[in-house]
Amino acid sequence: MKSTYVERIAALRALMEARGWDAVVFSGSDPHSSEYPAARWKQVEWLTGFTGEAGDLVITMNHAGLWTDSRYFIQALTQLEGTGVELHKTRIPGAVSIPQWLSDKAKTVAVDGLCWNVSAVKEISDALGEEGTVVDVPDMLDELWEGRPHIPMTPITTLDVDTFGGTVRRDKISWLRKWMLIKGVDRMLLTSLDEIAWMLNVRACDIDYNPLVISYLLISHDSVRWFVKKSVAEGYSDPDTLDSFSEIEMDDVVVDDYDAVFFGLSDFSEEQSPVTLFVDPSTLNHHLYTYIQDSYPSERIVTGTSPVILEKSVKTESEIENLRQTHVDDGVAMEKFLYWLEKEVEAGVPVTEWDASERLTEFRAEIPGYRGNSFENISAYGPGAALPHYSTPKEGSAVIRPFGLYLVDSGGQYLTGTTDITRTVPMGECTQMEMEDYTLVLKGMIDLSMAVFPKGTAGCQIDSIARMPLWKAKRNFGHGTGHGVGYYLCVHEGPQSIRYQYNPQPLLPGMVTSNEPALYREGMHGVRHENIVLCREAGESEFGEWLDFETLTCCHIDTSAVLPELLGPEALAWLNEYNEWVYQRLSPNLSCEVAEWLRAKTLPL
Amino acid sequence: MKSTYVERIAALRALMEARGWDAVVFSGSDPHSSEYPAARWKQVEWLTGFTGEAGDLVITMNHAGLWTDSRYFIQALTQLEGTGVELHKTRIPGAVSIPQWLSDKAKTVAVDGLCWNVSAVKEISDALGEEGTVVDVPDMLDELWEGRPHIPMTPITTLDVDTFGGTVRRDKISWLRKWMLIKGVDRMLLTSLDEIAWMLNVRACDIDYNPLVISYLLISHDSVRWFVKKSVAEGYSDPDTLDSFSEIEMDDVVVDDYDAVFFGLSDFSEEQSPVTLFVDPSTLNHHLYTYIQDSYPSERIVTGTSPVILEKSVKTESEIENLRQTHVDDGVAMEKFLYWLEKEVEAGVPVTEWDASERLTEFRAEIPGYRGNSFENISAYGPGAALPHYSTPKEGSAVIRPFGLYLVDSGGQYLTGTTDITRTVPMGECTQMEMEDYTLVLKGMIDLSMAVFPKGTAGCQIDSIARMPLWKAKRNFGHGTGHGVGYYLCVHEGPQSIRYQYNPQPLLPGMVTSNEPALYREGMHGVRHENIVLCREAGESEFGEWLDFETLTCCHIDTSAVLPELLGPEALAWLNEYNEWVYQRLSPNLSCEVAEWLRAKTLPL
Repeated sequence: MKSTYVERIAALRALMEARGWDAVVFSGSDPHSSEYPAARWKQVEWLTGFTGEAGDLVITMNHAGLWTDSRYFIQALTQLEGTGVELHKTRIPGAVSIPQWLSDKAKTVAVDGLCWNVSAVKEISDALGEEGTVVDVPDMLDELWEGRPHIPMTPITTLDVDTFGGTVRRDKISWLRKWMLIKGVDRMLLTSLDEIAWMLNVRACDIDYNPLVISYLLISHDSVRWFVKKSVAEGYSDPDTLDSFSEIEMDDVVVDDYDAVFFGLSDFSEEQSPVTLFVDPSTLNHHLYTYIQDSYPSERIVTGTSPVILEKSVKTESEIENLRQTHVDDGVAMEKFLYWLEKEVEAGVPVTEWDASERLTEFRAEIPGYRGNSFENISAYGPGAALPHYSTPKEGSAVIRPFGLYLVDSGGQYLTGTTDITRTVPMGECTQMEMEDYTLVLKGMIDLSMAVFPKGTAGCQIDSIARMPLWKAKRNFGHGTGHGVGYYLCVHEGPQSIRYQYNPQPLLPGMVTSNEPALYREGMHGVRHENIVLCREAGESEFGEWLDFETLTCCHIDTSAVLPELLGPEALAWLNEYNEWVYQRLSPNLSCEVAEWLRAKTLPL
Repeated sequence: MKSTYVERIAALRALMEARGWDAVVFSGSDPHSSEYPAARWKQVEWLTGFTGEAGDLVITMNHAGLWTDSRYFIQALTQLEGTGVELHKTRIPGAVSIPQWLSDKAKTVAVDGLCWNVSAVKEISDALGEEGTVVDVPDMLDELWEGRPHIPMTPITTLDVDTFGGTVRRDKISWLRKWMLIKGVDRMLLTSLDEIAWMLNVRACDIDYNPLVISYLLISHDSVRWFVKKSVAEGYSDPDTLDSFSEIEMDDVVVDDYDAVFFGLSDFSEEQSPVTLFVDPSTLNHHLYTYIQDSYPSERIVTGTSPVILEKSVKTESEIENLRQTHVDDGVAMEKFLYWLEKEVEAGVPVTEWDASERLTEFRAEIPGYRGNSFENISAYGPGAALPHYSTPKEGSAVIRPFGLYLVDSGGQYLTGTTDITRTVPMGECTQMEMEDYTLVLKGMIDLSMAVFPKGTAGCQIDSIARMPLWKAKRNFGHGTGHGVGYYLCVHEGPQSIRYQYNPQPLLPGMVTSNEPALYREGMHGVRHENIVLCREAGESEFGEWLDFETLTCCHIDTSAVLPELLGPEALAWLNEYNEWVYQRLSPNLSCEVAEWLRAKTLPL
């Protein structure tokens, strides 16, 4: 198997030699800067076997290197063994970035300009200096990659906002046009798939776990053109998709072919005078940007952050109402699963991490409106849980035993929202260290849940609230405390976050964010407690206007591994109240057996 | 009295008319960007009567406006009444800055280029646009201000670092030259007075409370030239100063006249080739910068942040050792004062805020090595304490009564360091609100004192730790939580801070910072608890390297207004331990009477 990757890299090097390229760089992304690409764009995986969700690859004639962050260090070392590809660690002190690394090792660097955003290619180009050249070779691997997957064409559905929450398409378009008017731009190109799905209220399954449609959207003051692979022009005839197109066209959106975006961008016939185009270089790909630069005078290209990102992050009243119910439904599935797991393991049934993951998905699938999982379940027992992004193997995953900690991080996509929850489950007796870690992480999660803060506060300003209980014990975790969560969209979205790194975006009422401090001990165990929280108004005082969090996630937190003296009275009171709320909300929807079990689980500590 | 200011502004307007200036702007600073200027540069006060420590003034033909922040709103409104000068609030939402305000109201703007730093004048100039002009008129007020004070010429002393801590002058110069070598610059001009005092280990009293010498320092790889008013060239003959000059000259520092800085900067005779000059535009004044631009080709002027600021903020081992003892000595004075105050008020003696302030200074003056106060004592009872920067009036200050809260914020300058301490003292019975505010502010101060954080953490990342107890009660304070403190230097110094606003400077071991959350209720009371804390190494774990704080301030915190249930068990334990430590450290230096009293004050709650 490993020899496959060695051969593929050798074939690429032959191509490089023939073309005179010193280096080739591949991103782990797609033409839309997606966090997770469709199979067609898993170029790094095809070349190296590395399946992590973040990883960029550099190939020179005598070196192959994968750049990835701490979430994937262990996975990368395992998967890259025998391929000749070396791991370059990112986000560590002294890390050397790809542009820095290339600067004294290559003059001519080939990139698949479709899969790198404008900013990233500019960094490489700047690092190479005046004597260096970046060659844009779109779909460079086509000639080597036999049977390379096509752009996916899953059925497209439109969302009925009356039932499922949100704002109608026409209103979103009007809002964006108003923004364009104020900004003084004639056209705006949307390239990010979740922004497009949100704008048009459309969903598909083009990317695993992300209900997106691979497409571009071009909006001007008098037209909206949607460039999508499944357009009628291509002879695609899925009836649901055709219905969706008809519905969308009734809102004066023209559906066009995916590749017609190039023509669409340079089509000025309607306009009398030269037009101004707005693009967001953080998601626009380099190849398309080069085309735009050829079509528009430079003073007519306006770059900036797309306003859709912020608008999308602030959920509407109807979305929030749906999210509350969706989290109750999701909690019911979680409790059924946790009950099942406890009983199986108690009964001595050899349940593996994989079995548990499958069972959990089955419980979620029972929920009306379920459209799939929002990411790959992380089902990890003991040492597996020490990998923050553990990928549970189908064959040979660990058996869950009646002691120690089991961690399950999972979520669902529903017509009424997206969920993301982590519970760390004490399966029986735990060590002192497991209980300490369990309690300190929980205290951090609860302290953040109880936070109140002035309007204008950014997530990075309150990140330390979640970490301080761990910090005081000189413990820490390497990832963010919270990410934005989409509404039946990507489970990770911006612009807000709660993290150690600087991010000036204030938390706004209506934003939905995860709260997930953690602790990982390699080879031993991992702990993560994750709830989804809604930022909301918390009233006014003579000292200003206040915000706090409403916890949306509704699933009990096991108290058996809690050390009450470490948790402290305030957090303990919160925990007892939370568990009682969970019981009251969920028990009407559970069988007597499970409800009785949950009653015992949620008794105050 | 108010008519004086009206007349002065009228005289200035006559000058403006004669010269064709649309507007004149004055800063509250001096040619060295000092936080507190000497009397000569209190131009805003001379024109308006406003005595606040931060305030910039704009005069046009039909408007006079003072720009200041929330610390001085109430004071400004009182002091400006009847002068025709209007208050413009800064650092509030929607605040309009001076450059913004001027942009559509003036074309020709005169500035005293000596008293504005480069960055500030650039902002004004940018706001005026191409059609606007900034006219630099140094010492513009000279022709109107009869008897304008001269540049102060207080005696200069040198510090004996063997006894009083720190690093010898030669080593500091070597260190800076090494930095210049790495940076590739030939000369460096230091303009900030505390940087110069630190570099040369010199002190004087040119500015109230700030032991500084008004001067410039020009360092090249083969010479050091100190431009100071008191140079022998000017015929100044104070014997201590002359001794200091002799000592400094032994370290190859040439002492020259203050105004010779211009000549010194353009004196290239020693060098063979054109030299490169480093300046820090955040403290360099516009007038001098203009001169530099005329003397150096633009590519030979390197701008950036002076490295002295950071180096100075990290105290040496000997400085830290001295600081510990200095805070014990300062604590003895504080305890004597607090004992005296309590007994006087109990006995029904009518002690005013002013009396108390005077008495406190007397106690401090008894300490060997005392060189004055580090800022104007804030001695405030009841409503006066609601002004964060209350200036205690000599006549008519409030009498301290045997109930409610008295706040005293004060500090000393000693040969072995600078102190800054605030205690809020319950004088007897307190209201529920006073006790709540007292306790919540104290909890914030203690929570921050107990913080542990990874190396690399900036103060702004842990500011919320100090605020959260208040935030949860929807209370807040408008100033920073902590500022750097100099070593027998300015009581406010950078680069670190602990504040809500972004400041990326990590806290480093050896930095000395205040920890002073607060709460102010206009017309009622103010609470502030302030200790000085030293950032220190707290060991390593598998999760990284850790820092925490050692509290230097040694003075008991009154427990009579503490609501223990609000404080919580962890902070209560800290408080009891702190008070016990204070008693153990201070009692050997107190009379039996005061020690006994302190024993009772420090019994665990």
